[in-house]
Amino acid sequence: MCAEAPLAGGASAAAAVSASRAHRVGLLGQGTVGSAFSRLVAEHAEQIERRCGAPVAISGVLTRSRGEFEQILAESDVIVELIGGLEPARSYALSALAAGKGLVSANKQLLAEHGEELFAAARASGAQIRFEAAVAGVIPVIRVLQESLACDRLERIHGIVNGTTNYILSAMAAGRSYAQALEEAQREGFAEADPSDDVSGKDAAAKMAILARLAFGVPVRVSAVPHEGIEHLQSDDLLYASELDLSLKLIGTAERADGGISVRVHPAFLYGGHPLASVSGPYNALTVESEAITEITMSGPGAGGIQTASAVLGDLCSVLTLPSPPPPEPLSLPLIEDFSSAFYLHVEVADRPGVLAAVAGALGAHGVSLKSVLQRGLGGNARLVMVTHRIARSRLAAALAAVSQLEHVRSAPRAIPVIEEEFR
Amino acid sequence: MCAEAPLAGGASAAAAVSASRAHRVGLLGQGTVGSAFSRLVAEHAEQIERRCGAPVAISGVLTRSRGEFEQILAESDVIVELIGGLEPARSYALSALAAGKGLVSANKQLLAEHGEELFAAARASGAQIRFEAAVAGVIPVIRVLQESLACDRLERIHGIVNGTTNYILSAMAAGRSYAQALEEAQREGFAEADPSDDVSGKDAAAKMAILARLAFGVPVRVSAVPHEGIEHLQSDDLLYASELDLSLKLIGTAERADGGISVRVHPAFLYGGHPLASVSGPYNALTVESEAITEITMSGPGAGGIQTASAVLGDLCSVLTLPSPPPPEPLSLPLIEDFSSAFYLHVEVADRPGVLAAVAGALGAHGVSLKSVLQRGLGGNARLVMVTHRIARSRLAAALAAVSQLEHVRSAPRAIPVIEEEFR
Repeated sequence: MCAEAPLAGGASAAAAVSASRAHRVGLLGQGTVGSAFSRLVAEHAEQIERRCGAPVAISGVLTRSRGEFEQILAESDVIVELIGGLEPARSYALSALAAGKGLVSANKQLLAEHGEELFAAARASGAQIRFEAAVAGVIPVIRVLQESLACDRLERIHGIVNGTTNYILSAMAAGRSYAQALEEAQREGFAEADPSDDVSGKDAAAKMAILARLAFGVPVRVSAVPHEGIEHLQSDDLLYASELDLSLKLIGTAERADGGISVRVHPAFLYGGHPLASVSGPYNALTVESEAITEITMSGPGAGGIQTASAVLGDLCSVLTLPSPPPPEPLSLPLIEDFSSAFYLHVEVADRPGVLAAVAGALGAHGVSLKSVLQRGLGGNARLVMVTHRIARSRLAAALAAVSQLEHVRSAPRAIPVIEEEFR
Repeated sequence: MCAEAPLAGGASAAAAVSASRAHRVGLLGQGTVGSAFSRLVAEHAEQIERRCGAPVAISGVLTRSRGEFEQILAESDVIVELIGGLEPARSYALSALAAGKGLVSANKQLLAEHGEELFAAARASGAQIRFEAAVAGVIPVIRVLQESLACDRLERIHGIVNGTTNYILSAMAAGRSYAQALEEAQREGFAEADPSDDVSGKDAAAKMAILARLAFGVPVRVSAVPHEGIEHLQSDDLLYASELDLSLKLIGTAERADGGISVRVHPAFLYGGHPLASVSGPYNALTVESEAITEITMSGPGAGGIQTASAVLGDLCSVLTLPSPPPPEPLSLPLIEDFSSAFYLHVEVADRPGVLAAVAGALGAHGVSLKSVLQRGLGGNARLVMVTHRIARSRLAAALAAVSQLEHVRSAPRAIPVIEEEFR
């Protein structure tokens, strides 16, 4: 075992011995993931040589203080981009692809913002591009979408693609407030000091844009993905919902809808039997659905240096052994804003005779029918907790506006989508 | 939508129009999976052409009553083998590979018994071989082992690879006896009239032999995989265990152990938080573990004509677009018979003072320490239900032989492995 990250050009004994015929890898970035990747290349040298036909030698490393990109590019067969962010990562990636070098990237932001440009560059030069580590850590969702399901007609992909929020929601399900749960996540290293990209759903939105491109062929701008985060959730919503066998997750969705696709991120309740319902803590999980496959669910750690590095190494081995085409030319389908779902509703009411009838009546007048109802509390504190049948969110919004106007309703109703098990 | 399976040579309009440049696929077998495959090829023609660069045309179909293999082979670029069984499937597969034609097979038995011969033939001619559908239906475990994790050093793969037994155990967990659960599974079409290959664990053993070859590089004869089925399980074991938050599954395991590998199939208890614990009904699921990935779990339908056909189509598209090497030359590692695990123990005792102390003492004298104990019942019907800490099965067997000799122990103790969560 090798505890130290090897230096450039000395990745492993095997690589040093036969450097002349080794696969030459230029590594951009030597942070947590980069160091873990170098360590894996050294520790797994025997397995790599067996599977890739020759050893892998790290031919150059670029960090803030060391290395020169053009030289590293000239001396490499494959570029592994782990520096993150948009620039200079984008320029380096485009240069590598233009030079016909394989590119492996773990950069979610780069793929979400500039994926189409990178894919076009790869198609133009015939270079390979792989980016498994950019979405959901070690979960092989990119490969499964691009390869196993390349010729399927997918209906939906949805899942838990942000470990920070899943950790926080798991803690809230155990009774903590949002603030307590966030503090705990920060203490345990599962949330950043500034958690806003995670808790707002923005991070998940970027990942869903990438997955939507692969699942449906449609380029999706991150700014066009509506996202709602978890900051406004109330612990009591989780507790009432648990009585209805519902658990709350931050769910990213990309699905066919009304001749287009809907891509979005929002909290959603799941019934106990749903394959995503039991995924707790900092794990990620994704369910892919189609008529032909019914569904496939994949789960695993969503982050972590060694886990991300493992996904990068898997991509590198594939670039070296499985010449694969980049994503094909994009398709054009409209992005649909509205979507249909069952919804959980939470309405604070005065506990007067007839208030449930009035609320149910206002909902029914707008076409909202109810699947289950809980009534809790007394006097000024009474709450109606309901789950509707499937309805368009736009129609539900109109119904909730009407409910808000009713005499004994004390605040604007809260609504959270409920994901039904449609395939099992 | 096309309800009828298309005839040979007329797979789809797109294929007919441009048959000259189409990928020519020879289909062996036109049963449930073969018909579903033909239907998918027709229905997904547009997607297939987009992803594979040209349409797929079914250039010939071999059934018991129609078609001639040599002619189909001559007129095909890829052979899709869906006839099942050992012969003539083996001869056809070897002929196809020797001719340098790509081979896609859904034949678990063929891969388990003759995989090494097929892989050698593929390496010799440079032909491709893919067989995702042979294990765990649409779950992409073959691809993930062969590609995503090709350069990882795996520690263990285990899971639920037989849908029939998982259905039966789910019904037993709901209170049915084994006989009732089996009858229900047969009525619902999840068990054969003769279920012996499924309920004995033999089917799962063949699948684990295939997975062990891919995960660890070691050829494993099916006859060398110890397997224990579910026929002897008692409903009361499931009920007691549920009080300990344990659920019972038929688990196939392949793992590194003492300088070799252990491959086996047996019933095992899982703690509630284990990613396989919530997989119920006819679903399959697999967890792959290594130091680098921690773990990846994948679940989905384990069988079904359209689902299996979907896995076959995914393989076909990969053969056409991702030239991949066959599994490398085999490695040699010893197969280890003994294995270590925590164990659930069930001992029927007379309810006398000191009997628990006597049993615990006999276990302790053999190095078996207890993690939890339940004592149930009175008089002649008393039961001790215990979970041990991790111990080698051989040592436990010696301890249980000693327990059987104790004065107030009324029958031979039952022992079932308990899978601990080692990575989370």
